[in-house]
Amino acid sequence: MDRDRCLALDAADPLRDFKDEFVLPEGVVYLVGNSLGALPRRTAERVRRTVEDEWGGQLVGGWNHAGWYAQPLTVGDRLAPLIGAGPGQVVAGNTTSIAIFQAVSAALRLRPGRRVIVSDLSNFPTDHYMVQGLAGLLGGYEVRDFAERRFDDAAVVLLSEVDYRTGARHDMPSITAAAHEAGALIVWDLCHSVGAMEVDVSAADFAVGCTYKYLNAGPGAPAFLYVNPRHHATAENVLSGWHGHAEPFAFEPGYRPAEGVRRFAVSTPHVLSFAALEAALDVWERVPMAQVRAKSVALTSLFIDLVGDALELASPADPADRGSQVSFRHPDGYPVMRALIDRGVHGDFRAPDILRFGFAPLYIGYTDVYDAAQTLLEVLGKELWREERYATRLAVT
Amino acid sequence: MDRDRCLALDAADPLRDFKDEFVLPEGVVYLVGNSLGALPRRTAERVRRTVEDEWGGQLVGGWNHAGWYAQPLTVGDRLAPLIGAGPGQVVAGNTTSIAIFQAVSAALRLRPGRRVIVSDLSNFPTDHYMVQGLAGLLGGYEVRDFAERRFDDAAVVLLSEVDYRTGARHDMPSITAAAHEAGALIVWDLCHSVGAMEVDVSAADFAVGCTYKYLNAGPGAPAFLYVNPRHHATAENVLSGWHGHAEPFAFEPGYRPAEGVRRFAVSTPHVLSFAALEAALDVWERVPMAQVRAKSVALTSLFIDLVGDALELASPADPADRGSQVSFRHPDGYPVMRALIDRGVHGDFRAPDILRFGFAPLYIGYTDVYDAAQTLLEVLGKELWREERYATRLAVT
Repeated sequence: MDRDRCLALDAADPLRDFKDEFVLPEGVVYLVGNSLGALPRRTAERVRRTVEDEWGGQLVGGWNHAGWYAQPLTVGDRLAPLIGAGPGQVVAGNTTSIAIFQAVSAALRLRPGRRVIVSDLSNFPTDHYMVQGLAGLLGGYEVRDFAERRFDDAAVVLLSEVDYRTGARHDMPSITAAAHEAGALIVWDLCHSVGAMEVDVSAADFAVGCTYKYLNAGPGAPAFLYVNPRHHATAENVLSGWHGHAEPFAFEPGYRPAEGVRRFAVSTPHVLSFAALEAALDVWERVPMAQVRAKSVALTSLFIDLVGDALELASPADPADRGSQVSFRHPDGYPVMRALIDRGVHGDFRAPDILRFGFAPLYIGYTDVYDAAQTLLEVLGKELWREERYATRLAVT
Repeated sequence: MDRDRCLALDAADPLRDFKDEFVLPEGVVYLVGNSLGALPRRTAERVRRTVEDEWGGQLVGGWNHAGWYAQPLTVGDRLAPLIGAGPGQVVAGNTTSIAIFQAVSAALRLRPGRRVIVSDLSNFPTDHYMVQGLAGLLGGYEVRDFAERRFDDAAVVLLSEVDYRTGARHDMPSITAAAHEAGALIVWDLCHSVGAMEVDVSAADFAVGCTYKYLNAGPGAPAFLYVNPRHHATAENVLSGWHGHAEPFAFEPGYRPAEGVRRFAVSTPHVLSFAALEAALDVWERVPMAQVRAKSVALTSLFIDLVGDALELASPADPADRGSQVSFRHPDGYPVMRALIDRGVHGDFRAPDILRFGFAPLYIGYTDVYDAAQTLLEVLGKELWREERYATRLAVT
């Protein structure tokens, strides 16, 4: 594989035109789309419209006339196809952590006789922290590590489809079936799946995810919560705010849950953040997800091949078993990544020793992968990361 | 009182120049700032900067370099003076409903021997709904209406300083003292106070509020949560997300709460919505709150005087007992309000019979009040609201 071959692959890429949809800084190969996706070109105007025309022009009337009030459901319906869900099954808003609290607490109430929550200690920590907070509040629950693979007396299993550190991908259908066979419900975290591959939540009980990674909806964009229709009539939203009420504007003193997934809405949506999410979804409407996954597999495989033995691979070697990121281990991972970023290749570092590279197929091409790998090999080969200036640590990376 | 006298009062108003800070539609007297505040002129550029320069230019680096990560605390510190709090006592983010869940659940855990939550059935419903959700989740709690005024065995009292329907204002110092004397903690909802009057939370245990009403931070702007320093070491955030962890980027499997109010941060802040809040606070930094309250009292009193006996006053007659809104009762309140809005005077309607008018002293003047009252008197006197076109009801007002 050489650079000319990569240029040819980019020219033949059916997704190649999507790169023009994004604003990307000159001279940067941005491989952090698995943390914060790039800015879609159309987003600035969409947000400006919400601020100046809707808020400035319609004032409080925007809740009706600009569709703000309905956003959690209308945007939820637009997200649904990206995770294999149907209309009326997804509500958008708040954050993934809060959606996890809603989903897990609802699952516990649907399995009142059981006192075990299975959660993955290697998962992105907030998932497990939210479970700990809920279990501590309720008392009497055991939190069991997913690594034990024991679901037999569990009320609920919470798991990420794709691991944030290694990119390892769990098999959703078989784990969902195993949880159900044991009488447990399952909550899938799709943060590192949605927008990177085809997802099918239809067998799951609940699913959550964020929209600021592969979906490109911006820093702190609204999260989403999927609730399987079989639970719509019985699942309870313990964060029972007025937007989940059957008649929010009746201002009744008692809470009555809305029909359907709307009962999982909480309260006033973050409208400006929703505007950027809507702009991002305007792009996704035209994207064939099978092509995204095929390109993702090709890009990650190419990167692994090019880096070769220069680094220890932390991600699964089989593309079927990983998401759209490649992770390597290096004992001095932090200065290595700093040296790489200084040379225009942006990945990130996750303690203690993981170098992460995310490949967003809409704006990353084969030539980008080639250039990133060459730069990485140069940094490693010449030991450029040993320079004094890379020794310091940032609090937030 | 005539219009010329109002023009003279506007000319002598020490806050008169602030009106230029806002974008207001031509020909509209906007008396709904108690629901959604007007758009500050500087907000569009501030939000554009966040989208294009920060997100577009810095990508994931914005979490550090643009200060996104620290927003819940830096913005909390900027909100603190508006409620009589100090630095390190307020965290911004999420919604008021979610902050209520955090505050009330934390209070319950600080009073483990008690099983009564006092909540106000006439409060804005979401406050009470959140309490119902929490009590339902925990089991074994009695939710007692504040109207009974019995705190003796209560764990916590949740109350709004200013009633959303009538504008009636509770006396914070005396109710706080009564709750404490009974051994209860108190959570104040400041949604209809902050930005309308001087607030002093220093005796309270917790306080919550929104920023999209008098503070003008935009639709769905972040809420805030105040925690009294005496509880910082012991209060627990049951929504224990990674941003409240002592070391969020250590990615530890176990939750360890941060020191201070940061433990009440949950997860990724809604950065675009925060940008608009920051722009709004740029205005508030120059506003003397005593002048705001003095003008608020003058405006509401003038409106009540001008409307006179034409409508039944639902708000307290004594300005010391009300916030910055005036409410009237009318059996056909909805069509009356529709007729009024058609004539450029924007108030809102709250079921079953309340006409609400909010007076935001930064952009509402004495002449606005005069004109609004004259229009209201004309609509009532000529019974313009009886026209067929005003008979229909909107789902959301």
